Amino acid sequence: MRIETICTGDELLTGLTSDTNSRFFQEALLERTGLTVRRSAVVGDRKDDIISALDEAAGRCDVVLVSGGLGPTSDDLTAECAATAAGAPLVESAEALRHLEQRFKDRGIVLTDNNRRQALVPQGAEVVLNAEGSAPMFIQTRKACVLFFVPGVPREYRHLMSEQVVPRIAALRGSTEVRKLALLKTVGLPESHLDARVKPLSQKYPDVVFGFRTHPPENHLKLLATGSNEAEASALLEQVVAEARTLLGPSCFGRDAQTLPGVVLSALKQRKQYLALAESCTGGMMAQQLTAEPGASDAFYGGACTYLEDAKTQWAGVPEGLLAQYGAVSSETAEAMAKGVLARTGVQWVVSTTGWAGPSGGDAQNPVGTVYLGLAGPFGVQVEKHRFHGDRERVRAFATATALDLLRKALGGTPS
Amino acid sequence: MRIETICTGDELLTGLTSDTNSRFFQEALLERTGLTVRRSAVVGDRKDDIISALDEAAGRCDVVLVSGGLGPTSDDLTAECAATAAGAPLVESAEALRHLEQRFKDRGIVLTDNNRRQALVPQGAEVVLNAEGSAPMFIQTRKACVLFFVPGVPREYRHLMSEQVVPRIAALRGSTEVRKLALLKTVGLPESHLDARVKPLSQKYPDVVFGFRTHPPENHLKLLATGSNEAEASALLEQVVAEARTLLGPSCFGRDAQTLPGVVLSALKQRKQYLALAESCTGGMMAQQLTAEPGASDAFYGGACTYLEDAKTQWAGVPEGLLAQYGAVSSETAEAMAKGVLARTGVQWVVSTTGWAGPSGGDAQNPVGTVYLGLAGPFGVQVEKHRFHGDRERVRAFATATALDLLRKALGGTPS
Repeated sequence: MRIETICTGDELLTGLTSDTNSRFFQEALLERTGLTVRRSAVVGDRKDDIISALDEAAGRCDVVLVSGGLGPTSDDLTAECAATAAGAPLVESAEALRHLEQRFKDRGIVLTDNNRRQALVPQGAEVVLNAEGSAPMFIQTRKACVLFFVPGVPREYRHLMSEQVVPRIAALRGSTEVRKLALLKTVGLPESHLDARVKPLSQKYPDVVFGFRTHPPENHLKLLATGSNEAEASALLEQVVAEARTLLGPSCFGRDAQTLPGVVLSALKQRKQYLALAESCTGGMMAQQLTAEPGASDAFYGGACTYLEDAKTQWAGVPEGLLAQYGAVSSETAEAMAKGVLARTGVQWVVSTTGWAGPSGGDAQNPVGTVYLGLAGPFGVQVEKHRFHGDRERVRAFATATALDLLRKALGGTPS
Repeated sequence: MRIETICTGDELLTGLTSDTNSRFFQEALLERTGLTVRRSAVVGDRKDDIISALDEAAGRCDVVLVSGGLGPTSDDLTAECAATAAGAPLVESAEALRHLEQRFKDRGIVLTDNNRRQALVPQGAEVVLNAEGSAPMFIQTRKACVLFFVPGVPREYRHLMSEQVVPRIAALRGSTEVRKLALLKTVGLPESHLDARVKPLSQKYPDVVFGFRTHPPENHLKLLATGSNEAEASALLEQVVAEARTLLGPSCFGRDAQTLPGVVLSALKQRKQYLALAESCTGGMMAQQLTAEPGASDAFYGGACTYLEDAKTQWAGVPEGLLAQYGAVSSETAEAMAKGVLARTGVQWVVSTTGWAGPSGGDAQNPVGTVYLGLAGPFGVQVEKHRFHGDRERVRAFATATALDLLRKALGGTPS
């Protein structure tokens, strides 16, 4: 089965944006069907280029996935090109128009003529409404080729891939072979070490595909097991997962959709305990990641982002004298921040951060990248000094993950 | 001048790796020559696919950039395919071999037959040695098309782009025509409205390319102006930018690399004023975005992420009675949070947020997506009620941008 993808959009050809969608589709396709994409093209917002790309791909493929260019603006040309390429007129889909009208009504926004264009599809195409956005997805059949047209907005794209496109490709393929995927997530383990640790396992299980994915500050191990049915594939996968977890030890914090903040919150909820924060160099990143998890309020009290020295005194009760004596970036300040918030909030755990995220700041003793992480809990207070490398965002992201991981380990390591 | 790129490599089609090279080339090309890539393709490590991609691109392009597949292993097929496609034999380049031998000698490594393969190039191709790696770059001319073949290793690729490929394309082009790009960034303006607002302008200036980019919660207008020289292109661009800014009014918060938090911080610094936050439903996202900007400490005091009711009392001084009477998600609480933090910190401005980010929570009066935004400043306190749509992350992101934008407008609107 030959599958190609076509992404449209000038912004993908001028260095402004990267295509992050295709990778999502490729992974979902491989996991669900074992198929891979043979060719992937990006074309700009020009009618002749889009039409020739559609014609070429339709001529040699069983399936073509086309994304982007279904928005309401004048540079959204995909539906028109799909119609021209297939020699069909554009027609207004009553179903798509109703969906648009309802959506705009719900939001109290006026439906302009531009927006109405999003209900236009090539005659004969199957329309699939898009619960996540206004433009519908549509499916065209040209001779032996099925073409899926989907919006390029990542949230809409991903939803339609998971719910519509990949299941439909699996049905077109019609094989009963089943694939099961697991993702084991680690923090604090370089990719080369992760690879070396699980090497014996990849030799022991040649029928399982081992892949590595760097997602700084995390590294993930991807395991893909194939079986003649669901039970067989699952059994093989679970066996390899169990052995891989043993090899990875406490570096592995979670699996599949689990996130580091989510795992920390679950461990806290299980103990009916609460966490508060005192963030300086991470500047709210820990709080933001924790509150991104639905139901965070069952275990997260809140956090003080104590950026200036005065804020450290005001919200975390750090004595002015201590700041003057040791400086804001010091083990003493990290400890005082954690202790101060613990005393003021009455929670069981506090994580604190203070450091130099860069690009300026730092000194010989504490150069840029130095971060002190404090943890106050039932056992007392501990402070770790770390040195992270890279730019400001990288230092902040590594400090955030390392601080949350410190708490995770204190709460009992790896939940299963 | 029509330019296309072809990247080879199975790993780019299975979701394991993203192509980060092309964006580097696209940016360098646009900056140096004003040219953009017309089409970009990724093909796997299969001879027939690579050859047909080469033939198709060579048939319609002036320049083709081919990357990857020049390594020493058996799945490195690009040189062989380039030779087959052009009907030329592969020959060993004496120059490339000397470079390889020297490189291996310097590193004390034995040169294997596999490594020696890297000196093979299609007969007639121009060889350009690669100071950053062992495989040379080579240049083929097929009828009117020039094909550049470069290794895909990012360090080698980037070096060759900057030193060889982009300067050679600039020379081939031989035109003095120059293009200049501007990005105008808006918040609070749906993409279709943005398009409609600037429509008269796009008709008035047919030589300027108008593009739109959705980057929720922001929408961007992209303007690309062409002139016969630097000064002419710049003058045209600045004229269109000025008129577009007038049409967009205060919805436009910035240009090019400017960010909304960065613009807010600059406006505060100009006034030598400080901002503090009281975040509930945005959970640290505002603080995180502000502190992502280097030098945030010149205008950002810090923020209280007051997630639980007790935190609203502890850090923002919201009276318990007020929370009991009006509830945490209310205009009164948003106002009390902003006022409380203002009184405690002594800063000039406080932004507060409280709302239902979902998926659970809310009631008939304040359903999921309802957010109250408070702003306390020299003029007093104001509260706005908003209703955002979408999932938890989307509600939080829109609440964050809308709250920062509220302050930006209070600080005097659009900086130039």
